[in-house]
Amino acid sequence: MSDHSRILCPVLQQRIMSAEQAAELIPAGANVGMSGFTGAGYPKAVPGALAQRIRQLNSQPNAKPFRINVWTGASTAPELDGVLAEVDGIEMRLPFQSDPICRNRINDGTMDYVDYHLSEVSQYAWSGFLGKMDIALIEVAGIREDGSLIPSSSIGNNKTWIEQADKIILEVNSRQNAKLEGMHDVYYGTALPPNRKPIMLTDPADRIGEQYLACPPEKVIAVVETAAPDRNSPFKPSDEVSKKIAGHILEFFNKEIELGRLPKELLPIQSGVGNIPNAVLEGLDAGPYKNLTAFTEVIQDGMLKMLKSGTLKVASATAFSLSPDGIQEFDDNIDFYRDKIILRQQDISNHPELARRLGVIAMNGLIECDLYGNVNSTHIMGTRMMNGIGGSGDFARNGYLSIFVSPSTAKDGAISAIVPMVSHVDHTEHDVKIIVTEQGLADLRGLSPRQRAHEIINNCAHPDFRPALIDYYERALHSGRGMHTPHLLEEALSWHQRYEQSGQM
Amino acid sequence: MSDHSRILCPVLQQRIMSAEQAAELIPAGANVGMSGFTGAGYPKAVPGALAQRIRQLNSQPNAKPFRINVWTGASTAPELDGVLAEVDGIEMRLPFQSDPICRNRINDGTMDYVDYHLSEVSQYAWSGFLGKMDIALIEVAGIREDGSLIPSSSIGNNKTWIEQADKIILEVNSRQNAKLEGMHDVYYGTALPPNRKPIMLTDPADRIGEQYLACPPEKVIAVVETAAPDRNSPFKPSDEVSKKIAGHILEFFNKEIELGRLPKELLPIQSGVGNIPNAVLEGLDAGPYKNLTAFTEVIQDGMLKMLKSGTLKVASATAFSLSPDGIQEFDDNIDFYRDKIILRQQDISNHPELARRLGVIAMNGLIECDLYGNVNSTHIMGTRMMNGIGGSGDFARNGYLSIFVSPSTAKDGAISAIVPMVSHVDHTEHDVKIIVTEQGLADLRGLSPRQRAHEIINNCAHPDFRPALIDYYERALHSGRGMHTPHLLEEALSWHQRYEQSGQM
Repeated sequence: MSDHSRILCPVLQQRIMSAEQAAELIPAGANVGMSGFTGAGYPKAVPGALAQRIRQLNSQPNAKPFRINVWTGASTAPELDGVLAEVDGIEMRLPFQSDPICRNRINDGTMDYVDYHLSEVSQYAWSGFLGKMDIALIEVAGIREDGSLIPSSSIGNNKTWIEQADKIILEVNSRQNAKLEGMHDVYYGTALPPNRKPIMLTDPADRIGEQYLACPPEKVIAVVETAAPDRNSPFKPSDEVSKKIAGHILEFFNKEIELGRLPKELLPIQSGVGNIPNAVLEGLDAGPYKNLTAFTEVIQDGMLKMLKSGTLKVASATAFSLSPDGIQEFDDNIDFYRDKIILRQQDISNHPELARRLGVIAMNGLIECDLYGNVNSTHIMGTRMMNGIGGSGDFARNGYLSIFVSPSTAKDGAISAIVPMVSHVDHTEHDVKIIVTEQGLADLRGLSPRQRAHEIINNCAHPDFRPALIDYYERALHSGRGMHTPHLLEEALSWHQRYEQSGQM
Repeated sequence: MSDHSRILCPVLQQRIMSAEQAAELIPAGANVGMSGFTGAGYPKAVPGALAQRIRQLNSQPNAKPFRINVWTGASTAPELDGVLAEVDGIEMRLPFQSDPICRNRINDGTMDYVDYHLSEVSQYAWSGFLGKMDIALIEVAGIREDGSLIPSSSIGNNKTWIEQADKIILEVNSRQNAKLEGMHDVYYGTALPPNRKPIMLTDPADRIGEQYLACPPEKVIAVVETAAPDRNSPFKPSDEVSKKIAGHILEFFNKEIELGRLPKELLPIQSGVGNIPNAVLEGLDAGPYKNLTAFTEVIQDGMLKMLKSGTLKVASATAFSLSPDGIQEFDDNIDFYRDKIILRQQDISNHPELARRLGVIAMNGLIECDLYGNVNSTHIMGTRMMNGIGGSGDFARNGYLSIFVSPSTAKDGAISAIVPMVSHVDHTEHDVKIIVTEQGLADLRGLSPRQRAHEIINNCAHPDFRPALIDYYERALHSGRGMHTPHLLEEALSWHQRYEQSGQM
């Protein structure tokens, strides 16, 4: 038995119970707000116990299906989305996921999924149209004597869930580094309009809030002790393609600095999660940059390295997403990192007001991009959800520069990332400024649609697909239809159809 | 000859000349920043003189085409866009237009058009990628003794154009009401990142700037006197369709107030321009509302009436767009309106920070909407530009509620405004919350794509098209493709193709 050393509040010590007991407290049909952002800080025990319970209940003859609605910060892990999706225990999921089992449910039509801009979720919950939140299930790193909470490796929507829920279940995870304490900045100045005030943050390093989450002990119905690590996937070493993409971006940054259009410390960087963004960070770290800042969602391995080397002086985010090596590095050197990393709730880390004011450089991946710069970040072949838009819209729309990156082909060359018309739009032509593939970089700023098509085909498309793209564009241009955004409607989505029929675009 | 009573600055009195003389000062290839927003406050004489000059120059044998790039606030009028487009004098146009001749040039491929969010244009000009602005051509209501300018019936991007241009041509329009003086609020706290500060505006009534535009007299190369009215189109009286749309919106507002999800003074209203938005304003005026506010781009007739009746207590915008009757009413009662209307530059009237903070209720038109809530506001049949996205994206993305309105059919029933897949996306599924046609209102908040399809088909589609939409949706659902966003790629755009071939969707 644990010594409860992370649960200092006497009242809450009384509520310690097993994950199975806590799972019993979650009723069918409940709206449950769970912690978790990019595989960090999600509850690790109760969802599994709940899945067990659901499996058992649903196996009874004539059982009415037991399902809940799951709202999180962003993606979680097999221990949450995976186990609950496997037992078909999720009726509706929002606002982001990346779990393979969950994804299958969404795409076979057995789970409703609402894909929202991550900055907006807490406002939606407050505004009331999502319905009442019944239970918040939140992982924390510790409970202080006064009942306030030491947040875990992500904050996400936890502040809002704790405030909105009728009842709260806490998981106290002793595996989270105790020295996380003090790294968080929870802003309590939020409100619904007409009562909103300016958010007085002008630098990614600014602290505007509290180190702890306030939590009324009387709402806490269970405290569960855990000692399990966050999901942490190893990063692949940068491949040739990623390195080339990073190279094009660095060349672009250097040119902009030379032209006086970016300061030599750049502007606060936002970087999506994955191997390519990590390669870009590595590239930045190898370059001449010093004293950069990050205002982003997620701290990846690459940012730790940049902090270590002095390339980066501060990183603001809402979560970690580290590899096993990254976690080791962070745990071993937490005293170094403590004052250089600030974790905020996601309605602040991704806030449009702040992304615009700070002038964030937004770098995110894409699934496909079309001739005119419309970007699809979410849907495979227009119908199947991959993960979700996440924070990419928050940063791309309101940031200073929006950069979207992708290899020029996928599936061993069967799919072109540059298509005549995207099969779904997440970022419109108005919001997409720079496209980068290993082939090169298309700077779409100040260009009309026809001019953009030339840039994208010539600079970004894979040579194997370039002739077909030129052919489509030329025929569209001379089709007698509008020449502002030339298209052949009867062929616009034919590349996707061809892929579905033949496995090759 | 005029008594120059509106030009009090002695130095600038020396620069008074004819429109023809001023037009001679604009060189071929120049980037010219002109005033003008929704047919208000645009220069009325120099563009016409320039068009004359271009026509004459281009008629000479072997003439190298004389063209300029025209940047404005938003739409202007025949005297600007019309005359310059007619002589093929515009190489590139940004960020918005609504002129028929200009539109034809854009769609026949003889004019490049860059369609931008109106809040972002001034930032783009400052950032440098649009190139150097050579000349600013700005209508004002007067020049003060110290050389500062009394803005006209719109501000738009004038502050930025004056700051950015090497040389400035002023048109002083004595037809503009002299009592406009004092109604403007020009904010000089803007900056490029990393030097941006919070914008301390928390109420549409707040004044945060200056009443006048600063203008270095040494940059002014010409002053031209005019006395011509703004473009002003009569409003049609509300028809049945508009009244029904307004009715659905009012019913929705009332329900939201009842549920405690909107205050009884609503939240600041943004309303697009046109007959339907005007009908909604009329509906609000006839309802029980008092002390509403508007934080919008444009003051239409409907807002004057609401100010008069006390339904509206204050309106913040960047321009007027009044009918002849509206102008008469405004001129006759300007002392009443003076302290209830504030005109700001468009980077403030449409600022994401402010739209989010104030929690704007954004109401804008649409060309078409698809089953899943993606909205096309700009492109006819996917290829032909209508006007542009304007400020709709600024408000819909960052506001509190985004409402898109349209009759359910167009062209006497040949076109359905609800289609399987839109042929262009300006507002993605993530940003579209409410769709309204005369048939009814679809509340898409908190719904998955499949749930949205039911709402939109059942509540918004015209009964003539409903069966075909249901048929498409059902077949897409059972096509074996992804069921998150069901589509039949081979048919998704077939409604548009059918219309192009047969004149009927």
